Amino acid sequence: MLTAPDPPTDLERVHARLDDFFATRVREAEAYHPAYAQLWKVCGERTCGGKRIRPRLLLDFAAALGTHPDYGRADSANAIDLAAGVELLHTSFLLHDDVFDGDLTRRGIPNLIGVLATEAIAHAPAGAPDTRADATSAGTGTDSAPTSSAQRLHWARSCGILMGDLLLAEVHQIFARVEIDATARTALLDLLAHAITESVVGEQIDIGLEDGTVVADTATVLEMCRLKTATYTFELPLRAAATLAGATDPALHAALAAAGAHLGLAFQLQDDLLSTFGDPDEHGKDAFSDLREGKETAVISAARLTPAWPEIEPTFGTGDLDFAEGVRLQRLLRDCGAEQFVQRLIDDQTRALHETLADHANGLPDAARRCLLALADRLEGRRA
Amino acid sequence: MLTAPDPPTDLERVHARLDDFFATRVREAEAYHPAYAQLWKVCGERTCGGKRIRPRLLLDFAAALGTHPDYGRADSANAIDLAAGVELLHTSFLLHDDVFDGDLTRRGIPNLIGVLATEAIAHAPAGAPDTRADATSAGTGTDSAPTSSAQRLHWARSCGILMGDLLLAEVHQIFARVEIDATARTALLDLLAHAITESVVGEQIDIGLEDGTVVADTATVLEMCRLKTATYTFELPLRAAATLAGATDPALHAALAAAGAHLGLAFQLQDDLLSTFGDPDEHGKDAFSDLREGKETAVISAARLTPAWPEIEPTFGTGDLDFAEGVRLQRLLRDCGAEQFVQRLIDDQTRALHETLADHANGLPDAARRCLLALADRLEGRRA
Repeated sequence: MLTAPDPPTDLERVHARLDDFFATRVREAEAYHPAYAQLWKVCGERTCGGKRIRPRLLLDFAAALGTHPDYGRADSANAIDLAAGVELLHTSFLLHDDVFDGDLTRRGIPNLIGVLATEAIAHAPAGAPDTRADATSAGTGTDSAPTSSAQRLHWARSCGILMGDLLLAEVHQIFARVEIDATARTALLDLLAHAITESVVGEQIDIGLEDGTVVADTATVLEMCRLKTATYTFELPLRAAATLAGATDPALHAALAAAGAHLGLAFQLQDDLLSTFGDPDEHGKDAFSDLREGKETAVISAARLTPAWPEIEPTFGTGDLDFAEGVRLQRLLRDCGAEQFVQRLIDDQTRALHETLADHANGLPDAARRCLLALADRLEGRRA
Repeated sequence: MLTAPDPPTDLERVHARLDDFFATRVREAEAYHPAYAQLWKVCGERTCGGKRIRPRLLLDFAAALGTHPDYGRADSANAIDLAAGVELLHTSFLLHDDVFDGDLTRRGIPNLIGVLATEAIAHAPAGAPDTRADATSAGTGTDSAPTSSAQRLHWARSCGILMGDLLLAEVHQIFARVEIDATARTALLDLLAHAITESVVGEQIDIGLEDGTVVADTATVLEMCRLKTATYTFELPLRAAATLAGATDPALHAALAAAGAHLGLAFQLQDDLLSTFGDPDEHGKDAFSDLREGKETAVISAARLTPAWPEIEPTFGTGDLDFAEGVRLQRLLRDCGAEQFVQRLIDDQTRALHETLADHANGLPDAARRCLLALADRLEGRRA
């Protein structure tokens, strides 16, 4: 006997929602200009296939809260919309982050900027024949006049900025149109504003650390991580889910903000350890890329305080760091105690998370606690 | 006898709303990081003192529609909020535009990037003493470690991108929170999305024209101007005002979209003429700066079609264009007919505007027509 296929899960519906979103935007963009359509197309292709931890978190947490009688089951369409929204916010931030960092790849393949810097553009908008009189562009009109690689890079980076702007606008449109009462919608808009503010401050401090305009002590690096990553990755999905479930209690929202910060910091610190000491085949980044770029991670800010720093500093941040030097830096960073120091910081965050969750005054239902503890366990065990 | 002072006009209330907005954001930013507070402070200072034609247009047009019995008087608080919103949208676009163009000044004084590239930052966030062990930062903690001018510029440009993002987010928050029925709020959000889409397409084409990835024919240059400037500068304020006044008729909105495009194109073409042929003491830009930068204006795209182009091309876009060469280029652009051609394009737009307004089927009240015609007259006569 044939059985009906399982209905799609909410996460599958988020994937479909995002696929549909990009397909619609490409179609609409074609009416404007081929270069604009290409921008949406490349962005849609690059955005697919991520881990989508933010949408998952929002959906899982909304489901966990919804099992408790004090909270409502979040409207499924709203949860899917907001889950898609937080993913687009993440994509928007990544696009601008790649501009700040000058990166042309992400996870080993060309990012949007990398693609646009090399890919030809189909030109000649409909109805606008090339009437330019000079010789350099006479001809097909299907590819550009000769451009230098500096111009192509400027073009590609500018497109990355514009695409980030477009997605930032889209996220707001999604949050502003959630079908829910006015108080809850205002609360969602407040959460979005808060997440964007903190992410921008964190990004600004991170850039300042790289450019030397902000001093790189451990406290600043940790606060930067919390602001740049934790708030929009953990606090926003958790509190948006709670808002959809009808939770308005400030104590509960404060607990989720704290839990989000602890989870986010643990996640980011784990990331720093993995990219410094982990297996590049598993975490997907180039081996030693953080060391080569001189990235101010928590590992580095800890190492700066140790007597080993004068030995580390001359090689740290040298663009042509070779394998042997990379292995040597790894050993120095391990032997000076920086690895252990960061591992202790992760343990601190995990402990603080457990303490936050153990405080029953915050009104978190048990299912919600279990959801967050399971997430912490998964983060701790990850290798990528 | 003492008389009470006049109550503030709505435009004065927009100025006060914006001043208050920036002061509040600076205060909130101080809790995060001095560099973040500085960013808001510099942006607020640079944003003051503009002509604010977009808020004026929104307020004037809302007032003109409000005199007609078919339309309501727009709620004053909503009109002021949206007027502030369109000004912040403009500021957001200018910030990113300066990044794309690599500009460090605007109207002869340093822009936000120019200020941040040279100004020292007060450091040492509260409670986070500088514990970094290396020698370069030991000491006061009140100014940065030595940074190269390339790093300062990277820092300043990145800050410009982030500030543009923040203001783009703020505009959405304003539109999403207008206190009006859900249908009208959705219409306002649609208008905002439309304006952002067209502005981004226009900006992308403009960058493509500069980088040589998009071919510079007159049709493309005109469409670029309409998209990049006309939609958000004219169509958005006009249609937002109409929406606040309760206008939902598609014919009226189509007429305002058309009127906005004609006004915007006339405005931008006039701007091209002024910056190429006008008196720099009046228009405020450096003399010949468009010619020196190789900007693809309507004047240039027209000149490309003439036999004079081979004589113009070698000097056009040379960074060190001197006064005599500038005057010579002006004369060539005039003699080849490019100036006259662009003047005719302006006349076309003005004529099309009058035709749009003469069509009484679109339901525009007379006061609204007069408001738009008066604006067209002011644009035509302007010298700056």
